[in-house]
Amino acid sequence: MLPLPVLEKAQTELVNYADSGMSVMELSHRSGLFTDIITGAEQLLRDLMNIPDNYKVLFVQGGASQQFAMVPLNLLSNSKKADYVNTGSWSKKAIKEAKKYGEVRVIASSEDKNFSYIPEVTSSMIDPEADYVHITTNNTIEGTAFQNIPDTGGVPLVADMSSNILSEEIDVSKFGLIYAGAQKNIGPAGLTVVIIREDLIGHAPESCPTMLDYKTHSESGSLYNTPPTYGIYMAKLVFEWLKELGGLKEMEKINRKKAELLYGFLGQSAMFQSPVQEDSRSIMNIPFVSPSAELDAAFVKEAKEAGLETLKGHRSVGGMRASIYNAMPVEGVEALVEFMKHFEEKHAQ
Amino acid sequence: MLPLPVLEKAQTELVNYADSGMSVMELSHRSGLFTDIITGAEQLLRDLMNIPDNYKVLFVQGGASQQFAMVPLNLLSNSKKADYVNTGSWSKKAIKEAKKYGEVRVIASSEDKNFSYIPEVTSSMIDPEADYVHITTNNTIEGTAFQNIPDTGGVPLVADMSSNILSEEIDVSKFGLIYAGAQKNIGPAGLTVVIIREDLIGHAPESCPTMLDYKTHSESGSLYNTPPTYGIYMAKLVFEWLKELGGLKEMEKINRKKAELLYGFLGQSAMFQSPVQEDSRSIMNIPFVSPSAELDAAFVKEAKEAGLETLKGHRSVGGMRASIYNAMPVEGVEALVEFMKHFEEKHAQ
Repeated sequence: MLPLPVLEKAQTELVNYADSGMSVMELSHRSGLFTDIITGAEQLLRDLMNIPDNYKVLFVQGGASQQFAMVPLNLLSNSKKADYVNTGSWSKKAIKEAKKYGEVRVIASSEDKNFSYIPEVTSSMIDPEADYVHITTNNTIEGTAFQNIPDTGGVPLVADMSSNILSEEIDVSKFGLIYAGAQKNIGPAGLTVVIIREDLIGHAPESCPTMLDYKTHSESGSLYNTPPTYGIYMAKLVFEWLKELGGLKEMEKINRKKAELLYGFLGQSAMFQSPVQEDSRSIMNIPFVSPSAELDAAFVKEAKEAGLETLKGHRSVGGMRASIYNAMPVEGVEALVEFMKHFEEKHAQ
Repeated sequence: MLPLPVLEKAQTELVNYADSGMSVMELSHRSGLFTDIITGAEQLLRDLMNIPDNYKVLFVQGGASQQFAMVPLNLLSNSKKADYVNTGSWSKKAIKEAKKYGEVRVIASSEDKNFSYIPEVTSSMIDPEADYVHITTNNTIEGTAFQNIPDTGGVPLVADMSSNILSEEIDVSKFGLIYAGAQKNIGPAGLTVVIIREDLIGHAPESCPTMLDYKTHSESGSLYNTPPTYGIYMAKLVFEWLKELGGLKEMEKINRKKAELLYGFLGQSAMFQSPVQEDSRSIMNIPFVSPSAELDAAFVKEAKEAGLETLKGHRSVGGMRASIYNAMPVEGVEALVEFMKHFEEKHAQ
């Protein structure tokens, strides 16, 4: 989902951007107009997230899945050991990929309880020799999220923030590297944002594909080859929308309000409940279940008929899931809760 | 450059695609609407290029630069030797990257004459043990293009067609693998098309990043992770435009007409000339020079003032270059030739 004002602005400018007679899709990535777009997007993101000067912002391609390889390829430069926290499907994919390139240790996991909580991570669990520690801050499918960022001491913390970047204020300086596919809170699919502390750049081995070396993108200002220019333009529009809204402080308030609406209803419902432990709940992805698979199916079907789309849970966990990313207005969650109330009344015995 | 009717259609549909109430940028890549887009795009490309059934069409990310690594990573599976033809800047990058992964031999090169011609490639030059032969069919910066596809016998031929795919009819069955960044003739940057013979898939080593293994994308129908959905949608619109135009046969006729207009003028001009050998000329990228760097600069400046953009040659070769991709109408080339005539008269001694 993208904010409507952003889509409307993109529509207005699509054929003729800034009176250039060209679409953004037609601009050369070396042109002055595109330089303004990419440097503007970077500056807006730096302002929104308060990114310290010793971090680079990179606009790359390939999604989180490509980062699963880029992180170990670039960061396993000393001990070749890394510590991972396993909190769900995406963590598992990251772990599997990293094992190709070094010694991976899972230091905490919530797999024992179907990933329904965030396990505790303390500094004593971390191998001080590890090249990095990896976490997934928000677990899209399981609906969990880290409430506090673990203290990893001198070991760089790497975070997959694909599904909660820009949803709340975070302290970037606690991380060595943050990556996020754009398609949840940033812009259209095909763009990946990497925020990386400068000292972690430049350690990839000779055998690392040039496009998978952070140094390639860092040294060229993300212009080593043609970047996903239109995605970067859309991201800039989203960053501007966030800034006008009041930044991440305000966005977080709205997101917490939306989440509380839904969790509040789930807490008193006789039919629906959250499968996620209370202290581990995401404000972006809220899974819920009814007492039976039949009712789940009826709910998804009737919701769709009522215009409430994509409420089906991921095929790996079943049930329902409301993804209430930044662009979802409070009214959207209110409509969902209203619909759930009616459904519960209608289907009550 | 993108065809104006394509941009206008994209603009109309941007906020609300197919009455879904959603933008294409908001569609889940697993939704029915997006499935129709990606399967439609693939079928249109298959029809346009007459792609045989034993070839897969993959929609991936990272541009040609990422293919420079993916090709050797996936195809150097037997002798670990590959033969490359060096016809310019892009070939050189491909060669440099491939050397990371195997024994690379340059079997022909035009570097001796500043890449102003296409060297002859005969089957006797090719190592029959090589895992593949690599060519760049059209050289964007240098303005050269292969007029005939070399016969590589039983050795698979790999081609970077980034700057001339869909510009003319080609026989796909002569190639083992064709790749192209989308941003010249297909759609917006951030999408890469790979056409690969099935027997060349599945030979990447364990250490190959999952996202760089053709098998990953082939087995998942290019949906292993979220693909660049909007880029694929735009590509589909371009493919539809090409089909309506009459397909590649018609597109080739128009492209040859445009190229002949410009080459014809260059052939009789007292001021401008082509630096490219006559039997090696591209119909997509046409470099030309005046007698002095001062006149070159004046030309670029005055052309820009007259609304003729991006005529400056690449910084590595200087001079001017007209890129007349599919979306450039005949009228655009006529306007350029007209302007060149006036410039020549004005600046004649």
